[in-house]
Amino acid sequence: MVTKSVDLRSDTVTKPTEAMRAAMATAEVDDDVLGADPTAARLESEVAKIMGKEAGLFVASGTMGNLISVLVHCDIRGSEVILGDNCHIHIYENGGISTIGGVHPRPVKNNDDGTMDIGLIEAAIRDPRGEIVYPTTRLICLENSHANTGGRCLSAEYTDKVGELAKKHGLKLHIDGARIFNASVALGVPVNRLVQAADSVSVCLSKGLGAPVGSVIVGSKSFISKARRLRKTLGGGMRQLGFICAAAFVALKENVAKLEGDHKKAKVLAEGLNQIKGLRVNVAAVETNIIFFDIVEGSKITAEKLYKKLEEHGVLVMLEGPLRSVSVSNIRV
Amino acid sequence: MVTKSVDLRSDTVTKPTEAMRAAMATAEVDDDVLGADPTAARLESEVAKIMGKEAGLFVASGTMGNLISVLVHCDIRGSEVILGDNCHIHIYENGGISTIGGVHPRPVKNNDDGTMDIGLIEAAIRDPRGEIVYPTTRLICLENSHANTGGRCLSAEYTDKVGELAKKHGLKLHIDGARIFNASVALGVPVNRLVQAADSVSVCLSKGLGAPVGSVIVGSKSFISKARRLRKTLGGGMRQLGFICAAAFVALKENVAKLEGDHKKAKVLAEGLNQIKGLRVNVAAVETNIIFFDIVEGSKITAEKLYKKLEEHGVLVMLEGPLRSVSVSNIRV
Amino acid sequence: MVTKSVDLRSDTVTKPTEAMRAAMATAEVDDDVLGADPTAARLESEVAKIMGKEAGLFVASGTMGNLISVLVHCDIRGSEVILGDNCHIHIYENGGISTIGGVHPRPVKNNDDGTMDIGLIEAAIRDPRGEIVYPTTRLICLENSHANTGGRCLSAEYTDKVGELAKKHGLKLHIDGARIFNASVALGVPVNRLVQAADSVSVCLSKGLGAPVGSVIVGSKSFISKARRLRKTLGGGMRQLGFICAAAFVALKENVAKLEGDHKKAKVLAEGLNQIKGLRVNVAAVETNIIFFDIVEGSKITAEKLYKKLEEHGVLVMLEGPLRSVSVSNIRV
Amino acid sequence: MVTKSVDLRSDTVTKPTEAMRAAMATAEVDDDVLGADPTAARLESEVAKIMGKEAGLFVASGTMGNLISVLVHCDIRGSEVILGDNCHIHIYENGGISTIGGVHPRPVKNNDDGTMDIGLIEAAIRDPRGEIVYPTTRLICLENSHANTGGRCLSAEYTDKVGELAKKHGLKLHIDGARIFNASVALGVPVNRLVQAADSVSVCLSKGLGAPVGSVIVGSKSFISKARRLRKTLGGGMRQLGFICAAAFVALKENVAKLEGDHKKAKVLAEGLNQIKGLRVNVAAVETNIIFFDIVEGSKITAEKLYKKLEEHGVLVMLEGPLRSVSVSNIRV
Repeated sequence: MVTKSVDLRSDTVTKPTEAMRAAMATAEVDDDVLGADPTAARLESEVAKIMGKEAGLFVASGTMGNLISVLVHCDIRGSEVILGDNCHIHIYENGGISTIGGVHPRPVKNNDDGTMDIGLIEAAIRDPRGEIVYPTTRLICLENSHANTGGRCLSAEYTDKVGELAKKHGLKLHIDGARIFNASVALGVPVNRLVQAADSVSVCLSKGLGAPVGSVIVGSKSFISKARRLRKTLGGGMRQLGFICAAAFVALKENVAKLEGDHKKAKVLAEGLNQIKGLRVNVAAVETNIIFFDIVEGSKITAEKLYKKLEEHGVLVMLEGPLRSVSVSNIRV
Repeated sequence: MVTKSVDLRSDTVTKPTEAMRAAMATAEVDDDVLGADPTAARLESEVAKIMGKEAGLFVASGTMGNLISVLVHCDIRGSEVILGDNCHIHIYENGGISTIGGVHPRPVKNNDDGTMDIGLIEAAIRDPRGEIVYPTTRLICLENSHANTGGRCLSAEYTDKVGELAKKHGLKLHIDGARIFNASVALGVPVNRLVQAADSVSVCLSKGLGAPVGSVIVGSKSFISKARRLRKTLGGGMRQLGFICAAAFVALKENVAKLEGDHKKAKVLAEGLNQIKGLRVNVAAVETNIIFFDIVEGSKITAEKLYKKLEEHGVLVMLEGPLRSVSVSNIRV
Repeated sequence: MVTKSVDLRSDTVTKPTEAMRAAMATAEVDDDVLGADPTAARLESEVAKIMGKEAGLFVASGTMGNLISVLVHCDIRGSEVILGDNCHIHIYENGGISTIGGVHPRPVKNNDDGTMDIGLIEAAIRDPRGEIVYPTTRLICLENSHANTGGRCLSAEYTDKVGELAKKHGLKLHIDGARIFNASVALGVPVNRLVQAADSVSVCLSKGLGAPVGSVIVGSKSFISKARRLRKTLGGGMRQLGFICAAAFVALKENVAKLEGDHKKAKVLAEGLNQIKGLRVNVAAVETNIIFFDIVEGSKITAEKLYKKLEEHGVLVMLEGPLRSVSVSNIRV
Repeated sequence: MVTKSVDLRSDTVTKPTEAMRAAMATAEVDDDVLGADPTAARLESEVAKIMGKEAGLFVASGTMGNLISVLVHCDIRGSEVILGDNCHIHIYENGGISTIGGVHPRPVKNNDDGTMDIGLIEAAIRDPRGEIVYPTTRLICLENSHANTGGRCLSAEYTDKVGELAKKHGLKLHIDGARIFNASVALGVPVNRLVQAADSVSVCLSKGLGAPVGSVIVGSKSFISKARRLRKTLGGGMRQLGFICAAAFVALKENVAKLEGDHKKAKVLAEGLNQIKGLRVNVAAVETNIIFFDIVEGSKITAEKLYKKLEEHGVLVMLEGPLRSVSVSNIRV
């Protein structure tokens, strides 16, 4: 058996650095459920500042960040959320916004670049004063970068347009920013500019940034106050939270600078893969740290066989089902 | 002001006949919540027999029929249902399966004929033993005829194929049969054959059939037993239910035969409308009692103006929003 | 086998009169989901007027009336309702406010007379600005008369005090008025006075009043507007609703006057039962049309045997479980 | 201003030891969402072994542990849980089992010693085959030690009786073991014996045991498998979870032995408080690490004033509302 040497499955498998371990060992902590942990407060405030929002709240995962955000914006029974039919919230979060939160999703087609057509979004909006048979649209969700289309970035201009549409109809805009720093780096746009139109953002620190655990959601003080209560309801209130936050703080300070390198490596790898006979990569679409590649029809090898072969050689990738074959996203090796 | 003379808004505006009134006046009734109303029992049993299922349950509306059916099939938290992105349950029922039932919808594109591609349905199914981030698919929903594509009919063959797919993956199949008798008449296929593959059907008696109130859901005895309890939870248990059921019984006996005439009139009207300059109807798509027609781009008149003009002349139609303009479906005038 | 001659199980088994049948046969009706049924509108408006509230809405059952009322007042996720631990909503409605509505019940001990101590209610209220671990109290529910304590009546003074408490804490007050006319008659207090402090009342027409089906909920215009939408979500919107409403209208006009006789008969029966050796009735507690009686400990007969014996003689009663034995409430024989 | 010197508010304010910090700094970690974190797996397996159950799952808090446990046992819509009217789940967890999980609570009176009468529990059970108006009881919850009655312990014999009752009726038994080690130490009964009858236990490591974050729920493999999926739904899946688990492991190894000392200190403090004029403590009821004390009626000082006075002297306690005045539970100073 070969040693596991190259794990490209996901940027969630990143390992913490020594600096993070040291920060944890010396973190100043207190009971965060009683609102007393200084390190958590410092991290939340710092992320809020970076994102240009009033306040922040640490949560255990990106899924919890999205779940709480959607539920706070849709806190009235009978709410509907417009979101991409290929976005993380709709596909990979257990349908929690419905099964736990009772929110009705109204998916709109995601284009290959992660956007939804503005016209389609507007057509999907239901007026609260309207038909008695309609749920009330209260929220639009974007995801930037958009993982399931290969880490494609939404521009500030596009996001602003969706934000204007939301405002026009009295809706809120949430951005799933699991990889918002990747988008910022790839587009060369400051991250606070990129989320300017959003009422809330869920910012992940444990993917490319490499923190061991957690995301921070940001928004207005009133939003965060409701989010804090809902986090407690979900059981996401943690006691001496500062340990985790201390490591996350290091991730935030040290690792944003590494993302550009990740993107370059991804590009190189994508180009290389595309030259292999039987594989096909849309190289132009590799904007950040995620590569999806397909097996060319008629090839002798299947995606599953390739996956196993790579595993034998100590290279771990993700098998993506029959339609799209294989993905790679932890590129910092 | 002109007398309201022609109401074409919806086949829900049908008025009960004298025979229905007479049936109500003489109905034998008892407390149906205690399971004692003989007329309700007779109607439920008759509809079940016609549809080829074990048992039936009267419900206050098609929406309640669909809601109960989806919730019974998806009675375990974390369930997902695959349904058309243009179907009645997804668009016109307040999102109740999520907002009241906590079921996660996974809409699949509806084709113009009301079908969903079998391949797309299969790709949307989530294996319960699969990824920890997936809800569990437990149900597929079809709608026959499919109102929002203009009353198009699903063939027995198509339905069977979806049924086989459901069975292969351990899923249930529910048919929203708000207009299942229209489909049966239009296709010339017995109604029980048309729903043979379904685990449950919601059959409406108050649209083209003209009963004042209600639908009957049919399925296995075990399904109906669970449905009865859930109907009580929703507050849908009614006491001397036999009055309503007596009228519905008349509708069932007398009015199925009238549907063919409705369809013929709709065809004639569609052809006529299509000859009017500035209007466009896909005449071939008018298979049953529903007509959607658009204002040709560049016309001087808008859908809204036409709607008002018709109203002034005592003709009521439905305004269908910016994309599709006007619909007509109560054709028995 | 003896003919079923005396059915005392519940006042829900009341049979409609000839006048009700006649009213149904000639009712003026239209599509109530489209807001056009004149008979439904007339009934709703009449009940609202009688109860001294702005508007009304017909619903299929008392359970639906309570469910909708609680859910409208508690339309924000994280709501808690204070209600009696022995009240109908908590015990006999499938837990729908939680299982369908996600509302958290906070039961407070019901005294033998159907009240809850004001002090206990106040102690149970959770301030929305308070602890992050508390749900937010939004509603108090009373039931008048209170069925499960034997149809005991809540006085206007008591109800007012609860109303003041609710107001002081920014809460709403809902009254389950399944038998509110019985309470009004027994207390000799006009029914609108009795519910003066309430934000909503669910008024049943199908128990002692004998309508075949339905209740009307009353409250402010804004409350009813939200209730109408929620009724549609539950599938409780009915098409030609006027038929049922026409009968209910007769019940309202003709049968309130009969309640006093019911109460007298109940008193006589209670006194008679209490003289039978082995039975015990709290005669003083028989204020309206419900009698609970117990088998004296040490008796040779059990409640179950008595129940069967009575059934053999054509007398139907309700068996009430091990603690309380038998009840009678349809007294108009 | 006086330095904060003695924090007696809650055993949740415990600070981690140097050994815990060291364990975190050197923990072996991997992506736990992908099931690969060895330290998390080791902790889960160890706690399961100690509690005598098949498997374990780390969760972010006791609230999450209880929420997941209740929702797994009550995974079918329409479930009811029987629990103490004064227990932590009912009073201090935001009503999450209803507001997030749609489970209907049926509170039964808690006695002063934290038990519920067996007879009352049995009377509250609803047979699934029973009345159509009843939710289905699926779970009984106990809390040991029972915080809100002052940390009182439930004996193994009592717990066994409740377990037998549960089994007899086909129900599950969950124990909120936030302080189960305190109960074990106080009773002198091995902790696995104490929870022998339970189908699941939520074991807190961050209260008296002093871990910075987290609880472990234990039960059968099948229970834990469902719990793992639900944890993901709630957003409780954490990536490099091993850091937190490493500290929790130290807490488990080092701090169980300290609980006996806590209990002795609490007893001494309770006796001392009881000798202060104007204060009253039920000393006999102080079985573990929690003391509730009241201001004697007629005293000049109020609970609120005492609370502030103590705060000025650097002693932090919990103010417990009008009925019960002050509590102390972090006794390891």
